[in-house]
Amino acid sequence: MSDYRDYYRGRKVLVTGALGFIGSNLCRSLADLGADVLAVDSLLPDYGGNLFNLSGYEDKVHINVADVRGHGIEYLVQGQEVLFNLAGQVSHIDSMNDPFTDLEINCRSQLWILEALRKRNPAAKVVYAGTRQVYGKPRTLPVNEDHLLTPTDVNGINKISGEFYHLVYHSVYGIRACSLRLTNTYGPRQLIRHNRQGFIGWFMRQVTLGEPIQLFGDGTQKRDFDYVDDVVDAFLRAGAMPEADGQIFNLGGEAPVSLRSLVEMMIELAGQGSYSLVPFPPERKAIDIGDFWADSSKIERTLGWRPRLPLREGLQRTIDYYRQHKDHYL
Amino acid sequence: MSDYRDYYRGRKVLVTGALGFIGSNLCRSLADLGADVLAVDSLLPDYGGNLFNLSGYEDKVHINVADVRGHGIEYLVQGQEVLFNLAGQVSHIDSMNDPFTDLEINCRSQLWILEALRKRNPAAKVVYAGTRQVYGKPRTLPVNEDHLLTPTDVNGINKISGEFYHLVYHSVYGIRACSLRLTNTYGPRQLIRHNRQGFIGWFMRQVTLGEPIQLFGDGTQKRDFDYVDDVVDAFLRAGAMPEADGQIFNLGGEAPVSLRSLVEMMIELAGQGSYSLVPFPPERKAIDIGDFWADSSKIERTLGWRPRLPLREGLQRTIDYYRQHKDHYL
Repeated sequence: MSDYRDYYRGRKVLVTGALGFIGSNLCRSLADLGADVLAVDSLLPDYGGNLFNLSGYEDKVHINVADVRGHGIEYLVQGQEVLFNLAGQVSHIDSMNDPFTDLEINCRSQLWILEALRKRNPAAKVVYAGTRQVYGKPRTLPVNEDHLLTPTDVNGINKISGEFYHLVYHSVYGIRACSLRLTNTYGPRQLIRHNRQGFIGWFMRQVTLGEPIQLFGDGTQKRDFDYVDDVVDAFLRAGAMPEADGQIFNLGGEAPVSLRSLVEMMIELAGQGSYSLVPFPPERKAIDIGDFWADSSKIERTLGWRPRLPLREGLQRTIDYYRQHKDHYL
Repeated sequence: MSDYRDYYRGRKVLVTGALGFIGSNLCRSLADLGADVLAVDSLLPDYGGNLFNLSGYEDKVHINVADVRGHGIEYLVQGQEVLFNLAGQVSHIDSMNDPFTDLEINCRSQLWILEALRKRNPAAKVVYAGTRQVYGKPRTLPVNEDHLLTPTDVNGINKISGEFYHLVYHSVYGIRACSLRLTNTYGPRQLIRHNRQGFIGWFMRQVTLGEPIQLFGDGTQKRDFDYVDDVVDAFLRAGAMPEADGQIFNLGGEAPVSLRSLVEMMIELAGQGSYSLVPFPPERKAIDIGDFWADSSKIERTLGWRPRLPLREGLQRTIDYYRQHKDHYL
């Protein structure tokens, strides 16, 4: 498992959602490893795509702005050896307010990509960015890959479809697809402009600006967290290793942490900020999943992955990043 | 549980997919019970909608030909007390050949219906026609509702979404939705014109015409079967009983039967026909689920349902029906 990073030297690699949070961090790593990177992003407003995310890499990756719904994707996938498929709508709240758009981006777009591969490049490897949101409210903790799927919102449902399409295109057409079910990911290059893509980016914004944080409920909900570099490492392993083909893997954090402890740590590290507990807005309570942490022993066993960076250090790096570059994210 | 049939007297009830196999049998029963039935069907070619299915009931139900994708559905749902939602694309093979159309019918249409209810009639009860196809290849038999979902084709994936949308609209918006996961249903008024909607309608056609039946594989695959009147009874119970709200229920057959035994019984009852074993066509083998039978103890416990009609008697009634009316189905 040690040479998976070498695998990318000179490889043709396509990343969708490449100007977004995880996509851009992945593109940068791939370029550093010597890959020939095609960075595709639709730059839909409010979705997280940000050209600044690839600043300094404009000459090292090829940026192609395009919506994957269209025949253009059939051209773009040709000759690519690995496709990292991170294009998606990630807001749970938006998926309830506009379920049709979520369906378009998380289901129809995925079928376009897979049909393009089936027709033009069935030998490619594909790694799909799944989510722990497919599980909904856990019945048992930690949650492993055999846990029942009981999504609490339209986004969770459509992300299940996107993932299952990949697995069916593997079993029926032999496309070497796999899925990583991500838990809460944080780090540089995340959208912090609005609060509809999860709490951690929003907290990061507020702590960077020294604004008061409102924590919903009593703050005792526990979650697990991965620094984006660890998540990028999981994508690199899954893309390079044949053991991943046809598989689903949870990513989990080092240990569950309450949201209150998380916020207190962020305020301490930033040296500024404050928080208060407020009741859940009803539209958020209805889709909240309570405690969640993942069992990631399968990916550790199969691909040798585990999260490396301690939360404290990851948060410090992230706070430093947004302090330095906040003009590009606000 | 005994008066669920009385519940429908004078009720305003909407059935989608009402000219199809199960939908039309349900409409006839509802009309017999004194319900005020609005029968909605898009009559998409090749999908199973057949005006003859409501012959004799033209004056007892109101037939409205419409696609549910459109603002018309917001008008149609108003004032309805129960909505039986059976509109769907049911062919596994078609879903692989044209995944985008399957997505339109089984996902986008369902969101149209649920959004119409949310906006115009959030007090209505909704019963969704789910399918055992969501389970894919069973890990354990019989399959209960907690079995892992590992669909083998695009249809199975999109039917999961359609079902989960109903449950999320229940948990988030309080819409009283539930889902019945149907197993193989047979009986009068099923499409037998082509072989892309499951094997049992196709076998029925061949035995009615005295044509030779080709059985894929060795014929030892076991499945369970429900006569359509039993399935209609499950819909009537689920629609009338509040215990169903927010729930998923398997329907199962009386006992698993091998496809070879099924075919032999059909040939014996018809007094004509023959069969041979042939290798699976590869595109069907790739999505076949092998043995399947359902554990339906949850619906028996909760709604008092179990299948009543023995397979032999159901097959005889079905053969008699197609003999008498085959001109309307071929």
